Amino acid sequence: MRMTKLPSLPTIRRLPSYLHVIENAHREGLKFISGTVIAEELDLEPIQVRKDLAITGIVGKPRIGFPVAELIRAIYSFLYWNQDHRAIVIGAGNLATALMRYPEFPKRGLTLVAAFDVDPIKVGRSINGTPVYSLDEIGRRLPALQSSLAILTVPSSCAQDVAELIIEAGVTAIWNFTNVELKVPAGVIVQKEDLSSGYAVLSVKMRELHGK
Amino acid sequence: MRMTKLPSLPTIRRLPSYLHVIENAHREGLKFISGTVIAEELDLEPIQVRKDLAITGIVGKPRIGFPVAELIRAIYSFLYWNQDHRAIVIGAGNLATALMRYPEFPKRGLTLVAAFDVDPIKVGRSINGTPVYSLDEIGRRLPALQSSLAILTVPSSCAQDVAELIIEAGVTAIWNFTNVELKVPAGVIVQKEDLSSGYAVLSVKMRELHGK
Repeated sequence: MRMTKLPSLPTIRRLPSYLHVIENAHREGLKFISGTVIAEELDLEPIQVRKDLAITGIVGKPRIGFPVAELIRAIYSFLYWNQDHRAIVIGAGNLATALMRYPEFPKRGLTLVAAFDVDPIKVGRSINGTPVYSLDEIGRRLPALQSSLAILTVPSSCAQDVAELIIEAGVTAIWNFTNVELKVPAGVIVQKEDLSSGYAVLSVKMRELHGK
Repeated sequence: MRMTKLPSLPTIRRLPSYLHVIENAHREGLKFISGTVIAEELDLEPIQVRKDLAITGIVGKPRIGFPVAELIRAIYSFLYWNQDHRAIVIGAGNLATALMRYPEFPKRGLTLVAAFDVDPIKVGRSINGTPVYSLDEIGRRLPALQSSLAILTVPSSCAQDVAELIIEAGVTAIWNFTNVELKVPAGVIVQKEDLSSGYAVLSVKMRELHGK
């Protein structure tokens, strides 16, 4: 049960793509951008764009549109991306490496400060300049890393055990890339990233639009 | 502009997580599962669950719930996951490798049949049994691979050029893991996967629920 009513999650999910379009407009020197242009770029209905962006407190002006710089600041502020965030990565395999190299995260203020793994071959190395520590050491390492957010990329078979271990060590938010529905104590946030979600949308679009 | 009205995309995005919960119930031998139980597992409102699942045509019975086996079949059918699908991966780096090893895809009927890259060191090798071909050969290779869906994992700087090349070769749907808003001809489907979306939701949850 949620303690607080969160704003619409689909709207929040769309904000980063709005940010892309609006930042491109900013780079092109535009002062204003219309909801209709944003809608066309993102293949959304204009009414949806206006409704989504209202969440930031910025309202477009008729015939002029949204003030670009102000809207960028408002989205950053709404998402708390105007502050720096630090995360650790649990598991140091291909997905972890891809995430450590994902160019969007640093742009959004997210730094992946360390990875943890149980594989002695990986421990002690670094990926993209980020150190890989032994998972055994997480309790000792976590305070200095100043991160309460962990990105979980371990095999599904050990996901629940590892989740319990890192929560015990002080992690209070888990971005879960495994396919396990984690059981966690009250107060711990879990956000599950299921790539099948994108594939589900794609499957329906391919059938509806291509008839196959 | 869309030619066809698609069903609610947030609902479609949630179907894979419903499938997880309902398949677990199936493995445990349950014949029926209540909307309230599903809602609790996924931290959703029961009314949302009933509304989402109605899209499959299956309606729960009062006090009994949804018929588990029938609901699984209905979700598979709705997503067209009751048929096999084949995709190619463009780029053969860490993200591509992680996707080729992602255990959910084969379960959902998706087979990644080949990867394409420009790096001569990668070309000719195989990842998890999947061959890596030269991107130059895509036009010649594509017909035999029988895949019109490409997963784009190349660097952003070349994403638009590569998209044009693979569309020219016959790709009609792109699952775009780059951060570029691709410009494509009418009739080509692009589904953008932006990991910042999950991070946006997580940022808001952390602030709202943990006050930081």
